[in-house]
Amino acid sequence: MKQLAKHSSIVSVEGFNDRVPTGIKGLDELIEGGLPRASMAILAGSPGSGKTIASAQFLYHGATKCGENGVYVSFAERKDVFIKNMRRFGLDFAELEKKGKFKFLDFATTRKTAITATLNVLVKEVLSIKSKRLVVDSFSAMALAFENKIDARVVLHTFEKIMRQADCTTLLLVEVPTGSLNLGLGFEEFVADGLILFETIEDNVGIRKRAIVRKMRGTDHNQNYTNIVISDEGISLTPYVT
Amino acid sequence: MKQLAKHSSIVSVEGFNDRVPTGIKGLDELIEGGLPRASMAILAGSPGSGKTIASAQFLYHGATKCGENGVYVSFAERKDVFIKNMRRFGLDFAELEKKGKFKFLDFATTRKTAITATLNVLVKEVLSIKSKRLVVDSFSAMALAFENKIDARVVLHTFEKIMRQADCTTLLLVEVPTGSLNLGLGFEEFVADGLILFETIEDNVGIRKRAIVRKMRGTDHNQNYTNIVISDEGISLTPYVT
Amino acid sequence: MKQLAKHSSIVSVEGFNDRVPTGIKGLDELIEGGLPRASMAILAGSPGSGKTIASAQFLYHGATKCGENGVYVSFAERKDVFIKNMRRFGLDFAELEKKGKFKFLDFATTRKTAITATLNVLVKEVLSIKSKRLVVDSFSAMALAFENKIDARVVLHTFEKIMRQADCTTLLLVEVPTGSLNLGLGFEEFVADGLILFETIEDNVGIRKRAIVRKMRGTDHNQNYTNIVISDEGISLTPYVT
Amino acid sequence: MKQLAKHSSIVSVEGFNDRVPTGIKGLDELIEGGLPRASMAILAGSPGSGKTIASAQFLYHGATKCGENGVYVSFAERKDVFIKNMRRFGLDFAELEKKGKFKFLDFATTRKTAITATLNVLVKEVLSIKSKRLVVDSFSAMALAFENKIDARVVLHTFEKIMRQADCTTLLLVEVPTGSLNLGLGFEEFVADGLILFETIEDNVGIRKRAIVRKMRGTDHNQNYTNIVISDEGISLTPYVT
Amino acid sequence: MKQLAKHSSIVSVEGFNDRVPTGIKGLDELIEGGLPRASMAILAGSPGSGKTIASAQFLYHGATKCGENGVYVSFAERKDVFIKNMRRFGLDFAELEKKGKFKFLDFATTRKTAITATLNVLVKEVLSIKSKRLVVDSFSAMALAFENKIDARVVLHTFEKIMRQADCTTLLLVEVPTGSLNLGLGFEEFVADGLILFETIEDNVGIRKRAIVRKMRGTDHNQNYTNIVISDEGISLTPYVT
Amino acid sequence: MKQLAKHSSIVSVEGFNDRVPTGIKGLDELIEGGLPRASMAILAGSPGSGKTIASAQFLYHGATKCGENGVYVSFAERKDVFIKNMRRFGLDFAELEKKGKFKFLDFATTRKTAITATLNVLVKEVLSIKSKRLVVDSFSAMALAFENKIDARVVLHTFEKIMRQADCTTLLLVEVPTGSLNLGLGFEEFVADGLILFETIEDNVGIRKRAIVRKMRGTDHNQNYTNIVISDEGISLTPYVT
Repeated sequence: MKQLAKHSSIVSVEGFNDRVPTGIKGLDELIEGGLPRASMAILAGSPGSGKTIASAQFLYHGATKCGENGVYVSFAERKDVFIKNMRRFGLDFAELEKKGKFKFLDFATTRKTAITATLNVLVKEVLSIKSKRLVVDSFSAMALAFENKIDARVVLHTFEKIMRQADCTTLLLVEVPTGSLNLGLGFEEFVADGLILFETIEDNVGIRKRAIVRKMRGTDHNQNYTNIVISDEGISLTPYVT
Repeated sequence: MKQLAKHSSIVSVEGFNDRVPTGIKGLDELIEGGLPRASMAILAGSPGSGKTIASAQFLYHGATKCGENGVYVSFAERKDVFIKNMRRFGLDFAELEKKGKFKFLDFATTRKTAITATLNVLVKEVLSIKSKRLVVDSFSAMALAFENKIDARVVLHTFEKIMRQADCTTLLLVEVPTGSLNLGLGFEEFVADGLILFETIEDNVGIRKRAIVRKMRGTDHNQNYTNIVISDEGISLTPYVT
Repeated sequence: MKQLAKHSSIVSVEGFNDRVPTGIKGLDELIEGGLPRASMAILAGSPGSGKTIASAQFLYHGATKCGENGVYVSFAERKDVFIKNMRRFGLDFAELEKKGKFKFLDFATTRKTAITATLNVLVKEVLSIKSKRLVVDSFSAMALAFENKIDARVVLHTFEKIMRQADCTTLLLVEVPTGSLNLGLGFEEFVADGLILFETIEDNVGIRKRAIVRKMRGTDHNQNYTNIVISDEGISLTPYVT
Repeated sequence: MKQLAKHSSIVSVEGFNDRVPTGIKGLDELIEGGLPRASMAILAGSPGSGKTIASAQFLYHGATKCGENGVYVSFAERKDVFIKNMRRFGLDFAELEKKGKFKFLDFATTRKTAITATLNVLVKEVLSIKSKRLVVDSFSAMALAFENKIDARVVLHTFEKIMRQADCTTLLLVEVPTGSLNLGLGFEEFVADGLILFETIEDNVGIRKRAIVRKMRGTDHNQNYTNIVISDEGISLTPYVT
Repeated sequence: MKQLAKHSSIVSVEGFNDRVPTGIKGLDELIEGGLPRASMAILAGSPGSGKTIASAQFLYHGATKCGENGVYVSFAERKDVFIKNMRRFGLDFAELEKKGKFKFLDFATTRKTAITATLNVLVKEVLSIKSKRLVVDSFSAMALAFENKIDARVVLHTFEKIMRQADCTTLLLVEVPTGSLNLGLGFEEFVADGLILFETIEDNVGIRKRAIVRKMRGTDHNQNYTNIVISDEGISLTPYVT
Repeated sequence: MKQLAKHSSIVSVEGFNDRVPTGIKGLDELIEGGLPRASMAILAGSPGSGKTIASAQFLYHGATKCGENGVYVSFAERKDVFIKNMRRFGLDFAELEKKGKFKFLDFATTRKTAITATLNVLVKEVLSIKSKRLVVDSFSAMALAFENKIDARVVLHTFEKIMRQADCTTLLLVEVPTGSLNLGLGFEEFVADGLILFETIEDNVGIRKRAIVRKMRGTDHNQNYTNIVISDEGISLTPYVT
């Protein structure tokens, strides 16, 4: 029995190892070249850890380098703020939107009663531009609209199914509040195919940010921490130095 | 009084020590050759710890090496994803299904009101192919459908009884969310005959995965940790190095 | 004032120090020879710590060595599984049952509405064979059937009273789930006359099991840990080595 | 400003420093000779820490040495068990009862609806034998009968007032369950005039018991731990060795 | 920019730094001479830490040295006990009461339904003797009477406003139960102008008590611990030795 | 790829890096010169950490140095107290108010039923003086008025939107109670564009205060702690010495 070498290239059965490159430097190398196509991965992180930038890069890379349209569904941030802040990293989403390669859905003010209708709009919009990449920012915010855990879980399963059928790879952002030891409702991490963590670490001097891939179904992923580096080219992951 | 040697072979009273080999390398040696026939064991683990792969091996080994049909009941993963991901480890469930040796039941979207009917379908399907191995993925997801603990506990007891009468050995997956110190509702581990833990351990560099058998009724089981190794032949357990 | 020596034999006032030997090697020495007659002691432990084996030995010892019939009330384990697993340790409960010295009551599927009737059956059965030893497996499971703490506490008091009048010594199993720091509802340990803990301890290599007597009314009990050893002769307690 | 020396004898203003000796060796020295007359002190402790023995000594000492009748109100232990267990320490409560110097009230099965009537009986019985010492075992059990915290607090205040008017010194037992870091409902310790803690400490070898006086209104009390020693003469407190 | 020296005397703008000396030796020095006039400060502490004595000194000092009448509002302690215990420290409140300089309001048995009326009485009594100092013992007890946090917070704000208009400096006692890490409902410390903590610290030998000023609006307060010393002259704070 | 140097000046795209200087010495340097214009930042802190002073400086600096009117919305402190306490630091808000450059809204006694009307008043007042700076003291207090998390989150989003359209930069105070590990409801930190923490640190001697910027959207912020220094010129942040 041969153990899989870290970062090894597994022999690709037909259609077997179809990867969606994230465009985040240092991440794709950890997960055999990208997210499994049509899978749903969680990107969980503390405030300011770079979840938004990373997922923006994911969409931008898809639209500009892979010919894959993308949708950003926001229960958290507003469109104009998102577009302005991302321009800083050279990501011109206004341009993408004009070309019909990008849609931003602002659901920040969705209340309990409107959640079903909202999700229907979401699906419809994803299909309308044949989007192959989707970011939900965040499932934590969306989950507040459900009465109980089982409803939220069933919706997440249904949602995952629809996106898979649409061949759409999904990044589900999960908010990890300061002081919290767990991730959201405790089931998202099991429903999702992947789990990437952006952590904020405190030491005596200040804070540092690091990333780890804790789960990636059908993927021989690296299990070490990496540093999160934010530069004028966006987020990249570099080898971890303690 | 002679203490039982680790891994000792206890003299087998007639029908006394009938074992179901799991097909997971390194595990059977820890538990006198396999799970006690017709027992129900919990396989609890963190996200990405390998619960799905291990339980798939358990079913595949049964169907291909022991002539025992198997059922995978999923409240968590979808059939096509399961089949595709398992192919990576050389486990061809599509083939098994065609031969009538395997069934995959997708209950991911079961709501509270449907739980009783769902369980009836489950039992019926298990009996229909005279399944001798069953995986429930996961009890954590299934338990969300119950109003209170006592209902969930009673159903689990009833379920265990039916499977035992059907001579079906059951692996009950339990989700241990990131940051959680306990296992599910706190009673599963007492109802079940066995408890195998797949843990994710953090150190300064990253994460590692290890397994331990914490309980196995009627079995002189090893009480040490083992490393969880995932290779292209699936999961195996190897001696633990700290 | 002379301090009681550990393990000292206190001068027995008439009927004062009547003991019920447990048949668990190493335990009776810790508690002046056995449980106080007609008392109710808690045996609390983690999954796989040996609660069932120990309480089976308690009943078997009574029936075979002391001429005391016994009843095992189960809200947790099934009769055939119990009988089969205990045969491994040389405890033949099927034989005892045939001789009318043992009864196994299976209440695993008792729901909230049935709890009062169930307890009546329990008492009736204990009296019917003039049982002098009783095991309740477990109070944790039974307690799920009560609406609130005060009901559960009152029932436990009533129950204790009836058993004492029947001169029946009771072992009340309490489940301590993985990750839990407390014992059940928090009052059992005060209602009961004794409290024996079976703990699972983790170190870097794996798990070990140890026992301690934390409380025994009317008894000068040892306050040190002992190792739990499970051999083909069942459970015994040996001096603790850290 | 002269700081009060530990164990100093403060000049007694008329009626100012009237003390009720507890009869527990080593305790009275810590609190200027005894509990302040007509005060209410909490004796809080883990299971098996000796709360019952200590409070029995308190009553026995009063009845035999100080000419003060006593009442033991039990929401926890039964009379015959109490009397039998205490005989072991040379405390003959049956004799005291015959002489009309002691009453044991068994309220172990009091339910929510009966709590008011129960408390009225309690007060009536205390007054009927002009009891000057009262033990409530335990407030933790009694508190289960109240709907909410404010009701329990108001009743405790009322109760304290009545006992003070009756010139009756009260020991209120509070149960500290294994694993609990706090004392009861969190207000008893502020309502009561005194707070004595009986703690169970774990080390690598086993458990030890120690006592500390954390609060005693109107008293210059010692603030160090003492060992709890249980001998055939009951409980005594000795200098603490770590 | 000149940093404020510890204990510095800030140039007093007219009416700017009007202080109310507490009469507690060692405290006034920490807070520029006393509490800001008409402010509301929290005195939070564990049982037995000296909250009652300290607040009694605050009132006594006002009435005897500053010509400021005072009111003690008790949801916790009874008048006669308070008066008797304080006499020990040379504080004769009976005398003060006779002279009309002191009032003790006993609200220990206030229930939910009576809280509004109770507060009206409180205000009326404070105004009736033109009280300039008020102690509420305790807000923790009073808060039990409110349905929810927002009601309690609004009442506390209203209360603070009335007392300020009456030019009355208020000490609000908050109970910190054993084992608790937080202070009351979590908002008092933000509503109040000051926060003084009386902590009980455990070491291997026993307990010690220390004080710290964590907040004092409009005051350059010392941020170090001090020892709490209780002598026959009451409470004083002395330099902290670890 | 060039990593952004700490404190680097990023090339300013038109309108891209428009900053609102806070007037808090040492803070602006950490965040590229100030808060992003029209953004909403959280200032979270323990009691007495200086939140009020810092936010007062923010408003005063705007009104006196930048020609930007400001509004202080208080659910916590009263106007006269605020004005008096701030005068100590040379901040004359009475003067500002007279000139129409400052408004103080006192909502300390807002109850659940009044929250919508209250927020409407808030917005109206901000617009009435064309306020470009807003302080909400505190969101913690305001949030008590909402029935559930989703309502509070939706209102916060709506609020953020209105303020952005009004080109008003908002500082949202969040109360971190003593003993609390998390910030408010757990979502504010994700909704807000920035997160500044004022922490109180305990050591053996006493407490110290330090600040850190944990998040600032569209900003290359410093990630180290700084000391909080309160002098007669208000709050300033200085390099951190452990």
